[in-house]
Amino acid sequence: MEQYLFGIDLGGTSIKMGLIDLAGSIFEKWEVPTNTDQEGIEIVSDIKRSLMRVIKRNNLAYEQIIAAGIGVPAPVIEQSGYFNKAVNIGGFGGFSITEVLSESLQMPVAAANDANVAAIGEMWQGAGLGEMNMIMITLGTGVGGGIICNGHIVSGSVGAAGEIGHMPVVLEETSSHYFSCNCGASGCLETVASATGIVRLAREMYQENKVQTRLQMCENYLSAKQIFDAAAQNDVFAKKVVDQFAIYLATSLKQMTAVLNPSIIVIGGGVSYAGQQLIDAVESHFRGYIFPILDHSVQLRLATLGNDAGIIGAGYIAKQKLENKYEN
Amino acid sequence: MEQYLFGIDLGGTSIKMGLIDLAGSIFEKWEVPTNTDQEGIEIVSDIKRSLMRVIKRNNLAYEQIIAAGIGVPAPVIEQSGYFNKAVNIGGFGGFSITEVLSESLQMPVAAANDANVAAIGEMWQGAGLGEMNMIMITLGTGVGGGIICNGHIVSGSVGAAGEIGHMPVVLEETSSHYFSCNCGASGCLETVASATGIVRLAREMYQENKVQTRLQMCENYLSAKQIFDAAAQNDVFAKKVVDQFAIYLATSLKQMTAVLNPSIIVIGGGVSYAGQQLIDAVESHFRGYIFPILDHSVQLRLATLGNDAGIIGAGYIAKQKLENKYEN
Repeated sequence: MEQYLFGIDLGGTSIKMGLIDLAGSIFEKWEVPTNTDQEGIEIVSDIKRSLMRVIKRNNLAYEQIIAAGIGVPAPVIEQSGYFNKAVNIGGFGGFSITEVLSESLQMPVAAANDANVAAIGEMWQGAGLGEMNMIMITLGTGVGGGIICNGHIVSGSVGAAGEIGHMPVVLEETSSHYFSCNCGASGCLETVASATGIVRLAREMYQENKVQTRLQMCENYLSAKQIFDAAAQNDVFAKKVVDQFAIYLATSLKQMTAVLNPSIIVIGGGVSYAGQQLIDAVESHFRGYIFPILDHSVQLRLATLGNDAGIIGAGYIAKQKLENKYEN
Repeated sequence: MEQYLFGIDLGGTSIKMGLIDLAGSIFEKWEVPTNTDQEGIEIVSDIKRSLMRVIKRNNLAYEQIIAAGIGVPAPVIEQSGYFNKAVNIGGFGGFSITEVLSESLQMPVAAANDANVAAIGEMWQGAGLGEMNMIMITLGTGVGGGIICNGHIVSGSVGAAGEIGHMPVVLEETSSHYFSCNCGASGCLETVASATGIVRLAREMYQENKVQTRLQMCENYLSAKQIFDAAAQNDVFAKKVVDQFAIYLATSLKQMTAVLNPSIIVIGGGVSYAGQQLIDAVESHFRGYIFPILDHSVQLRLATLGNDAGIIGAGYIAKQKLENKYEN
């Protein structure tokens, strides 16, 4: 009888779930809306109910589901599975999610921050296949990430490791690119390398020097994708913006490479749909600018799992939990 | 019968060794010169011979020494114990040090890079006592370091993790502080935050703006200690130099904190003898300038073990090896 891992990716609008076999393939995936009413009081029972439905529909026995993993949009204390009330899921939290969920599901449960879980998903079945030392960076509305060392998520002392978006990268307060960040600090990578950050950078650079460009700079709507597309079509201004973005991103990647000596850096998130154009831009400011031993041992790759990284990674931490390697 | 761990810190001029009890106290420590002749062909037998002498002198039984650990001045592959021929020990290396040494000593042997071993020594018995997520940075002739996550050394894909000194920190090629580094890159932390880096920074800043200072700027001999001392005595120029050094160091520490969420950052090496003056200078550019959750969960401390960190840390990785946690 086939055994499955139950992977859960808890987001602000939906809970993505999947049954993952022990080799890492998705047997079935589905999602339900996140009910954030009353601090998400229904979340755990919604998860259980939808699991029961899928089990029944597939004529599985409950015992075939041997462990669960969950990624939550907040820092998770590795030892206890505790996480603070998280604003973006209606204040759900303030308890040990591993305890609450394993009580409900009656199986071992592992938990970690969602970005970290996505990173280990990419390690298991995606761009990082077979690698044990990996940095994943996600360039979306914000910039997130996950650090994998020796095949394990680095959680940090309060579960907040991998906050790559909050690495200071614009250092001079006098720089016109020294933007304030949601986190309270200024000059964070996120302010210049997220999808919104690239647009912010473009507007600032345009302001300074109103050059000819095919980009509709005065329209309200301007996207990172438009900037990359224009750069691909040789728009001089767009190319400058992409280059400046790449300088900032490469700087942070070089810093992390010196500290962590990864074999692979995986770039995901919406901005990564720019594909090889993005990799080439970053490589041009990365290669040859770091300690050679570090340079030679690292590759830059695009993420491959997209939105499935979360449920696959959640399956993986469930598997590690069973193997007693993930000491949650 | 008491059991001991054999800790070895292999350096370019001497091999420091110690017998460490399982609680982490040094029972006896000693050192022998490093014989770098013929690619260090005598190193392993010198280690064994001196261990035998100490065992005999103390009327110990050989079986009381249950495992050994060694820190070597080169990147070490964690899985195999392999390290490349290391220039600063006469070309010793190019084989698995764990295999060669355990064959000679007839006991389990763990190995890691010396800076990483010193970091885990501070975690076990020094400034990081009881902490599991720690960054150690050593400000000496160069800048080195070690990353500890979940109580384990982060070695990286080829054993080169913790190369904190080679994080790019001076980013503008046009900056007068954009010095080239021994590693082949430019703008590395080491060029402005090592003992020699601080002096380099002082000379450059003096060149730009020849101000009154009690420092003998035109003498060949100028040390980081003199600069810190003059700053402590309110010399305006020296204070500026210390402040600039602190900005660079704090920047790298903030970046690592965002990525790793440590509970403690330990500062060691010769420059750390400046003590609280150093901590205060760094804190002033660190606190309040990062994501609050990260800021609140980290402390900066001075290293406490000095030169003993290497043998104590080597004892610790030997202990981890025995506990099968250190999968060397």
